[in-house]
Amino acid sequence: MTYCLGILVRDGLVMMADTRTNAGVDHISCFRKLYRFEKPGEHALAVATAGNLSVTQSVMTLVTRGMENPYTGMLDTLTSQPTLFHAAQLLGRAVREVYRVDGKILEEKTTNGFGVSFLLGGQMRGGKMHLYQIYAAGNFIEVTPETPFFQIGEHKYGKPILDRAVHFNTLPYEALRTGLVSMASTINSNMGVSLPIDVMVLPTGNMMFETVCRIDEDDPYYTSISKRWSETILHGLEALPMPPYAPEHSSTICHLQPLKQAYG
Amino acid sequence: MTYCLGILVRDGLVMMADTRTNAGVDHISCFRKLYRFEKPGEHALAVATAGNLSVTQSVMTLVTRGMENPYTGMLDTLTSQPTLFHAAQLLGRAVREVYRVDGKILEEKTTNGFGVSFLLGGQMRGGKMHLYQIYAAGNFIEVTPETPFFQIGEHKYGKPILDRAVHFNTLPYEALRTGLVSMASTINSNMGVSLPIDVMVLPTGNMMFETVCRIDEDDPYYTSISKRWSETILHGLEALPMPPYAPEHSSTICHLQPLKQAYG
Repeated sequence: MTYCLGILVRDGLVMMADTRTNAGVDHISCFRKLYRFEKPGEHALAVATAGNLSVTQSVMTLVTRGMENPYTGMLDTLTSQPTLFHAAQLLGRAVREVYRVDGKILEEKTTNGFGVSFLLGGQMRGGKMHLYQIYAAGNFIEVTPETPFFQIGEHKYGKPILDRAVHFNTLPYEALRTGLVSMASTINSNMGVSLPIDVMVLPTGNMMFETVCRIDEDDPYYTSISKRWSETILHGLEALPMPPYAPEHSSTICHLQPLKQAYG
Repeated sequence: MTYCLGILVRDGLVMMADTRTNAGVDHISCFRKLYRFEKPGEHALAVATAGNLSVTQSVMTLVTRGMENPYTGMLDTLTSQPTLFHAAQLLGRAVREVYRVDGKILEEKTTNGFGVSFLLGGQMRGGKMHLYQIYAAGNFIEVTPETPFFQIGEHKYGKPILDRAVHFNTLPYEALRTGLVSMASTINSNMGVSLPIDVMVLPTGNMMFETVCRIDEDDPYYTSISKRWSETILHGLEALPMPPYAPEHSSTICHLQPLKQAYG
């Protein structure tokens, strides 16, 4: 499994991905799932991948080495596209090409079939920052200020904290901090997601990544916030009042409609 | 969708379930998914249900009205069983009976097929407290002190907080408080889970529920802890140090292995 997160706030883009892949629980490996394409001043793109590794690697190879454009006869690569929208289209075209070759047999022979998804974020010269999510069918959607993040893979564990804390005006490194806590909660609850975590931060207008790093299990910052977050949760719970439904407060139960005995 | 939670700690059992059901996003209703079977001093059982409502309601009808026992010719009901283990077996038998009648056609005609699951918790005279999770195949597992809770339905959003805060020695009303925060996080992030929430608390050895209530959107305690939990998350995040991967701390980046350009 996998957990990848892309956050596009006003001042920048944050992308992160874990590195665990598994074919069953007894075949666990470490693979990069966050890719960087960068030419300072020209373009800075990041792609995160989730799903069947053979499919995502084939797609990444196609968009890196180039796919023949049927109209021009030229090789189209992610970074040869005029806009990020075109780059998202190319990624979708590559997904469909891999589906054409491998899709049917994967659907027949594997449990998860052709389940893949991608995040593509970044900026190209002359364009704005964008963050797209590309589906297994090759179609895609884009974040807007109302919903400034996309998650792919094991997205549910870490979603509540993002829903509460990430907004379009959040600063990029605040979004990174929240994203790492979201990642830590996921890693803590699902063994299909694991360190190391690859992280990239791209400030708006920079056209060059400001932070590119791999966080492993010895990383002092990650270790510290993961531990402190556990304490935050535990202390936060202790600080909440006890439920008034307890018998010593039974006078407050009256506003609650009692359950009827099931089926009379 | 649904989120149900059962927690069995040393001093008692906590069961809760939301009440939202949906057939697609445009057909949302409110249905009870937490059932009580209680004869003070004799037995106190709670059953929570998740999955296809036609299946779970049929199962609950069978175990309430009775299924013919092929050996004795008598009608077996949940509460006529000598132990909670037998009650779990009966629930499994009822699931298999409904599968025999409806399973194949549901698998053919519906997206989610015959996906159901149940939690059965409580105590019967002469026995200990138990909490079982019954699967769609009718088999079941039981909680142990190492893993004192089961979740069914939309379990991922609310799992990180349970993993961190619920242990066998947690007090029942502390477990209820944590469970309600887990429920609030799930409700906040998934519109398939919603208030009202049905809640039951059964102290060990009591053989009678101490708390049975329905928490609706006007409930002052739930409203208050849901709001305070958001503040806990936001303040907790603010209190964490900023990531040292930010450029003003770039000297600390050196311990991180930089990413290589993807595919050379």
